Amino acid sequence: MHVRAEPQANLKRAASLVHLAADKGARIVCLPELFETPYFPASEHSVLTPKRIPNASTRLLCAAARDEGVVLVAGSVYEEEGGRAYNTSLVISEKGKVLGRYRKVHLPEDPGFYEQRYFSPGDSYLVCKTSVGNVAVLICFDQWYPEAARAVKLMGAELLFYPTAIGTVRGIEQAEGDWRSAWEAVQRGHAVANSLVVAAVNRAGREGDTRFWGGSFVYDQFGTLVARARGGEQVLMAACDLDLGRDVERGWGFERNRKPRTYGILVK
Amino acid sequence: MHVRAEPQANLKRAASLVHLAADKGARIVCLPELFETPYFPASEHSVLTPKRIPNASTRLLCAAARDEGVVLVAGSVYEEEGGRAYNTSLVISEKGKVLGRYRKVHLPEDPGFYEQRYFSPGDSYLVCKTSVGNVAVLICFDQWYPEAARAVKLMGAELLFYPTAIGTVRGIEQAEGDWRSAWEAVQRGHAVANSLVVAAVNRAGREGDTRFWGGSFVYDQFGTLVARARGGEQVLMAACDLDLGRDVERGWGFERNRKPRTYGILVK
Repeated sequence: MHVRAEPQANLKRAASLVHLAADKGARIVCLPELFETPYFPASEHSVLTPKRIPNASTRLLCAAARDEGVVLVAGSVYEEEGGRAYNTSLVISEKGKVLGRYRKVHLPEDPGFYEQRYFSPGDSYLVCKTSVGNVAVLICFDQWYPEAARAVKLMGAELLFYPTAIGTVRGIEQAEGDWRSAWEAVQRGHAVANSLVVAAVNRAGREGDTRFWGGSFVYDQFGTLVARARGGEQVLMAACDLDLGRDVERGWGFERNRKPRTYGILVK
Repeated sequence: MHVRAEPQANLKRAASLVHLAADKGARIVCLPELFETPYFPASEHSVLTPKRIPNASTRLLCAAARDEGVVLVAGSVYEEEGGRAYNTSLVISEKGKVLGRYRKVHLPEDPGFYEQRYFSPGDSYLVCKTSVGNVAVLICFDQWYPEAARAVKLMGAELLFYPTAIGTVRGIEQAEGDWRSAWEAVQRGHAVANSLVVAAVNRAGREGDTRFWGGSFVYDQFGTLVARARGGEQVLMAACDLDLGRDVERGWGFERNRKPRTYGILVK
């Protein structure tokens, strides 16, 4: 999704994309991170007011899910609760009911991605039982953390969505090599390690100094690419077979052969 | 390395490959898993006696490291201690001193890979300070576990080696898709998530019903392929820059932005 300046127009556009996906046969749809507004954490000085949930925007998203009869991983919104602000994703049933809310746990703080100035971190993960399977949502920077992907796997996830806003910031050197390839590689690794379908849903287009990559993708439970979007805005469809995750798990036993007693350093 | 029937010949061959690598300029060398003998856990009924360390074989490996002046990740050997048997890898300094021993933690138990019948699992991870950097060793099936890669990263590893014996077993269906591609993808993911150099060092050639893939590879700290071997026996050279790991860590902050308090489920 290419996000423009006007929140009302972005919300309307999001609803029309949900409609388009449903028309193509989608049963679950995911929107990108913070799609309601330009990516405000790009600046250190954005002025924006987080809102309690439910609000007009989340009601519109619930209506879109219900009207189109799809499960909706509703990107993320700028949430306020108890004096704190969060980067929050809702999972909404095809009946328009909020099944769960996830607050982004891992927050970046880098030039062009000053999220720690705007958000408090969440403190737990979310897996929702939906009509299409057990759905987990993690958000953008979470995707670099194998612990988060493993946590939702152990909570029963079959499908893992990452609403995302990642791209290249003009003037920031990329000494490390190919960021975009690393971004995709680490999530493909999560798919394999956890026998999960992994879908990254990215913003597209230019906003100020940031060029969001688009390029959303879906990997199956054995790390095979199912679908990858182009650079621009696009409804990307992917057909996935949840039985494959169970087959891999049965055959290879990645979960049953874990050794949690040796993992203590991960929680220190 | 293509392993043959005769242990003495395999050991001699291993020493000559270490010599060849040193001649090409290697400063650290890794041998594949259990390279001294045919891969005996392929059968449920192999008869083989594990040996206490040090023994004649490990002394020969220490001598090879010292003679060639290289750090040696000495594949793995069948170790006995206290009435238990282990799949054990030694890290040996360029002076021929054993710097540490790692006992394989994650053991497969599948057709063609009956390791739980032969080995007790290890209970801890290993990172050794060496003349070429901080070296971790994990073994084969460990490579599917993000927890193990993360553990050695948190212990200070800069280079992570996986002595390996993986291949295709005749008559075993591969309904899951491309195992070899998944094998490489999951380890590439570890390299990115942990800003580590990851090197998988695999057996090659046919042994009974098993065709080992060879195809050893090295990924850098941002998931870029540095080197990949062909299918047969080969000395694979790779040049790595350990500063890159520090650059990625500084820029992206994957380690400093971890949230260990949310990872409790991983150790349950």
